[in-house]
Amino acid sequence: MLWQDIEIGYKVKTDTKKITKEEIITFAKEFDPQPMHLDEEAAKGTLFGQLVASGWQTSAITMRLIVDSNPLGDIPLIGVRLSDVALTGPVLPDDVLHATAEVISKRESNSKPGLGYVEVRVETFANDKQIAGQTWQTLVPIKS
Amino acid sequence: MLWQDIEIGYKVKTDTKKITKEEIITFAKEFDPQPMHLDEEAAKGTLFGQLVASGWQTSAITMRLIVDSNPLGDIPLIGVRLSDVALTGPVLPDDVLHATAEVISKRESNSKPGLGYVEVRVETFANDKQIAGQTWQTLVPIKS
Repeated sequence: MLWQDIEIGYKVKTDTKKITKEEIITFAKEFDPQPMHLDEEAAKGTLFGQLVASGWQTSAITMRLIVDSNPLGDIPLIGVRLSDVALTGPVLPDDVLHATAEVISKRESNSKPGLGYVEVRVETFANDKQIAGQTWQTLVPIKS
Repeated sequence: MLWQDIEIGYKVKTDTKKITKEEIITFAKEFDPQPMHLDEEAAKGTLFGQLVASGWQTSAITMRLIVDSNPLGDIPLIGVRLSDVALTGPVLPDDVLHATAEVISKRESNSKPGLGYVEVRVETFANDKQIAGQTWQTLVPIKS
């Protein structure tokens, strides 16, 4: 796939990934060791009232689902900026996650010859309810 | 620490964390399986020309460094929005990462009684060169 093949409005829906309690705790121990992510009992005393996944884990799983869906074919996904990032709902143990990715814009770089920017709107769903959204600005080689 | 103790301009500098080649590859296999993150040889054929960490790993390590630094004391860090997220440089094997976090604003929620928003500007450095930045909007309980 080449720059010129990238179509605005092209959208993929990813496969699903079930997140387990163990995965939530393992990720939290390494990257986000706070009570609401680490321990079911301790989580009861937090704003969430129960164990929830780190937002960084939700984002990382979203990345994996989207990489596996190849929204830009064999063009790598190189994110340089993120905008409109919102976490609007919790991710709980045994939630089934999926994501959508839609190409919303493309333009050639003014400063980097041979490169362009593609914006991809990414939304993440837990049990089919949207719980996160973000817009990626990705850097893509332009081959003629 | 309480809402009223949070001071605009308060800034922490975190400890450091060296990222290894093995950590880059392990994270990539789980969350971002693309050639520039998975394999030194394959990475040579990418825009980066060498193995680089996933931006999601950089962010997750940044989170860990900041959680360990307690920028809001015992108030948990609950991110609800991110803005101004930019990845401006690569993270390479054996880079030494650290981050800074600065409280840049606080306001009470109009719609959620008893809760407020605190904005924290987060910057990540590799070998003391800034390579990422992001602004977190976090949700904080207001206790009188």
